[in-house]
Amino acid sequence: MKLYDFSLAPNPRRVRMFLAEKGVSIPSVQINTREREQFSEDFKRVSPRCIVPVLELDDGTCIAESVSICRYIEEIHPEPKLFGRDAKEKAIVDMWNRHAETDCYGAAAEMVRNGAPMFSDRGLPGQPSGVPQIPELVERGRRTVDRFMRYLDQQLANNPFVAGDVFSMADITVFITIDFSQRANYQVPADCKNVQRWRDEVASRPSASA
Amino acid sequence: MKLYDFSLAPNPRRVRMFLAEKGVSIPSVQINTREREQFSEDFKRVSPRCIVPVLELDDGTCIAESVSICRYIEEIHPEPKLFGRDAKEKAIVDMWNRHAETDCYGAAAEMVRNGAPMFSDRGLPGQPSGVPQIPELVERGRRTVDRFMRYLDQQLANNPFVAGDVFSMADITVFITIDFSQRANYQVPADCKNVQRWRDEVASRPSASA
Repeated sequence: MKLYDFSLAPNPRRVRMFLAEKGVSIPSVQINTREREQFSEDFKRVSPRCIVPVLELDDGTCIAESVSICRYIEEIHPEPKLFGRDAKEKAIVDMWNRHAETDCYGAAAEMVRNGAPMFSDRGLPGQPSGVPQIPELVERGRRTVDRFMRYLDQQLANNPFVAGDVFSMADITVFITIDFSQRANYQVPADCKNVQRWRDEVASRPSASA
Repeated sequence: MKLYDFSLAPNPRRVRMFLAEKGVSIPSVQINTREREQFSEDFKRVSPRCIVPVLELDDGTCIAESVSICRYIEEIHPEPKLFGRDAKEKAIVDMWNRHAETDCYGAAAEMVRNGAPMFSDRGLPGQPSGVPQIPELVERGRRTVDRFMRYLDQQLANNPFVAGDVFSMADITVFITIDFSQRANYQVPADCKNVQRWRDEVASRPSASA
């Protein structure tokens, strides 16, 4: 197996943190998206949508989606379970991970992609040009992330982790999004004390530096 | 179990089509989002984000995400498998479903939410007001769906179904999105002959009318 990675991008970091929690190591190559290496013809054969990360299996199959890569790793290295232990827990982990992707990661990405000068004319990932930024999405994204944080703060008032009792994929998604959102100068609202407590705890895990 | 459903909304239809493919029936109640019933205090207890569908389990657990509901059904009614049969197929189904959600469903939703008069000041789901529409997202969404359709057309040139050999969750997501996108007057590009062929085939399945 080979992981197409980029050390500065948030979605590859989700995979790296997941692998670190599993104690699994996979050889990797860097695709420097700041140098537009994702648009090379070689990389397009691996990832037609020009997006990192990608896990290439030994038979040549390419899994070009961060969470799908993590699900594959969960199948072949089941412990510790990071997508839930039984049918109900799996559904709740998936639900929180999806909430976090829509209202937190996705909204933070809108803030970054539509505000940062480095993404001028590249308001969506995977396209080298021709996608004008939409400045209104910066403010809409900020409000959506704020709303998610207040929702999450209630959840974390009664639960140690995002999806309940155990650390899961949903924690990885939110933790990495909070770091990523700082590129748009986003800060978790000061009144979200439970989120702050949870974030400090996750930051102390060895996987946080993956 | 009880399914909170709405006959005219696309995400509940994904669950209904999934259940029909499984041959599973679940008692349901209608939450009429056109009458804003999703914002009632009763429904907020079930779905704090004010979104349908929701599956309420007998112990009161609420799974408030369409695909998470389908994953739960897959766990308790494993056949026919709609999320893949082995580790690799599961990853590929998940990848295609996620591509379809980001570049097809999500982009179509942006077209509808930011263009239709009925969503004036409600540019995002789950909020009763205060989210101005962003008209530029209609055009951006249309281009993203077009791009996805051309990508999918290549995939369907060599595969009977979206994720490969067998009908899966990814087919459900794309099929329902194409119908949904017609609310923004979207039409699949005429040159996407493989998509048209696939769509006709899926439309002939009994689950298509669920």
